[in-house]
Amino acid sequence: MSAPSFPRSERNKVRRLHERGSYDRDAVYRILDAGLIAHVGYIIDGQPYVTPTCHWREGDRLFWHGSAASRMLRAVKQGVPACVTVTLLDGLVMARSGFHHSINYRSVMAFGQAHAVEDGKAKRAALEAFVERVAPGRWATLRPVTAKEMKATTVVAMTIDEASAKVRVGPPKDDAEDYDAVAVWAGVVPLRTVGGPPVDDGRLLPGVALPAWAIDYDIEVYRHRS
Amino acid sequence: MSAPSFPRSERNKVRRLHERGSYDRDAVYRILDAGLIAHVGYIIDGQPYVTPTCHWREGDRLFWHGSAASRMLRAVKQGVPACVTVTLLDGLVMARSGFHHSINYRSVMAFGQAHAVEDGKAKRAALEAFVERVAPGRWATLRPVTAKEMKATTVVAMTIDEASAKVRVGPPKDDAEDYDAVAVWAGVVPLRTVGGPPVDDGRLLPGVALPAWAIDYDIEVYRHRS
Repeated sequence: MSAPSFPRSERNKVRRLHERGSYDRDAVYRILDAGLIAHVGYIIDGQPYVTPTCHWREGDRLFWHGSAASRMLRAVKQGVPACVTVTLLDGLVMARSGFHHSINYRSVMAFGQAHAVEDGKAKRAALEAFVERVAPGRWATLRPVTAKEMKATTVVAMTIDEASAKVRVGPPKDDAEDYDAVAVWAGVVPLRTVGGPPVDDGRLLPGVALPAWAIDYDIEVYRHRS
Repeated sequence: MSAPSFPRSERNKVRRLHERGSYDRDAVYRILDAGLIAHVGYIIDGQPYVTPTCHWREGDRLFWHGSAASRMLRAVKQGVPACVTVTLLDGLVMARSGFHHSINYRSVMAFGQAHAVEDGKAKRAALEAFVERVAPGRWATLRPVTAKEMKATTVVAMTIDEASAKVRVGPPKDDAEDYDAVAVWAGVVPLRTVGGPPVDDGRLLPGVALPAWAIDYDIEVYRHRS
């Protein structure tokens, strides 16, 4: 049984506006699960790289995948330190002064060391979990993965050693004297990533219907349940 | 006058699916300008960090800002190597096999070394450019920035030494034999970040109207013009 919070260290401590920060596992997991894209930070020869990739989660482990030839995957699967950041943009916060403008967001920085998932069964199960998170019920309807495809795919898992969440919600907070002095619109412009009408590829077999998950797509509806 | 393409090196070379890659400055700039959020990668004591932040661009320079107390800004403004990645998620690409599922996206990785913008005039101009990029016409309507606020704010600029863009568009590409064999929906679920109805903060002065830019907000409409 994991502790309900991640340990705090110099690495994951929320320094700026620490009232926005959280080390609570559930808070961290909710944000990770609500994002489709993670940005993975790693180092090669002293140079930082940040690669976007789709991620998924099981318990305290983050997964991502790609080609066996990927530079990013070859680098991170060797167990070097990685930082995985997931950011959800929720709105523009428009204040009466430039200084108090902000963004409503949810973000997580997670730290750990990734390793390749080598076991064939575990790798297949991980890929299934990925497809199912994005499109529930889809895995069983697909042409099965071949051995060649499995070989060409690297899956990595990173146990989250430390993580922190940072969240801003709500209206702008202006200086007291500005409310009555500045005649400008102030408030929040909500932002959200939404699915548009699905476009089939024109080669569907007769009788194939649009699946329910694809309509008004919203990854936050399909968040992982574990 | 800059060359129309960024130089290619081991650092920015697009390795995987290189037909999706581009070193063209205009292609890179269009993607940078279409994103509100960048993920900045940097190293402290051998540990990579990835911090999300709002960015903006003037010519071949990327800017971002934050509190003078920010760990990220204190780290990067010393001219250490940084990697700034901007990713736009354009759609889910659903194929007939798990292997050929993909994402439509536009992304840029930009490399350089950031430094603090110390000159007061340049710093103020940079902040104005930032506000104007997000909300055209807004800067002049705000309460002016104070000296204290300027002091509390760090602005950094990074000349882009190298960059590459990577883009995927279009439908899934399935194996030839799967088209007639797999009865599953295949195509693209488009994704887009859109603005919802603006919510004012309930303290507007009489006669203050909702600005045009806030309606059906779309950062891609307000992309920077330089």
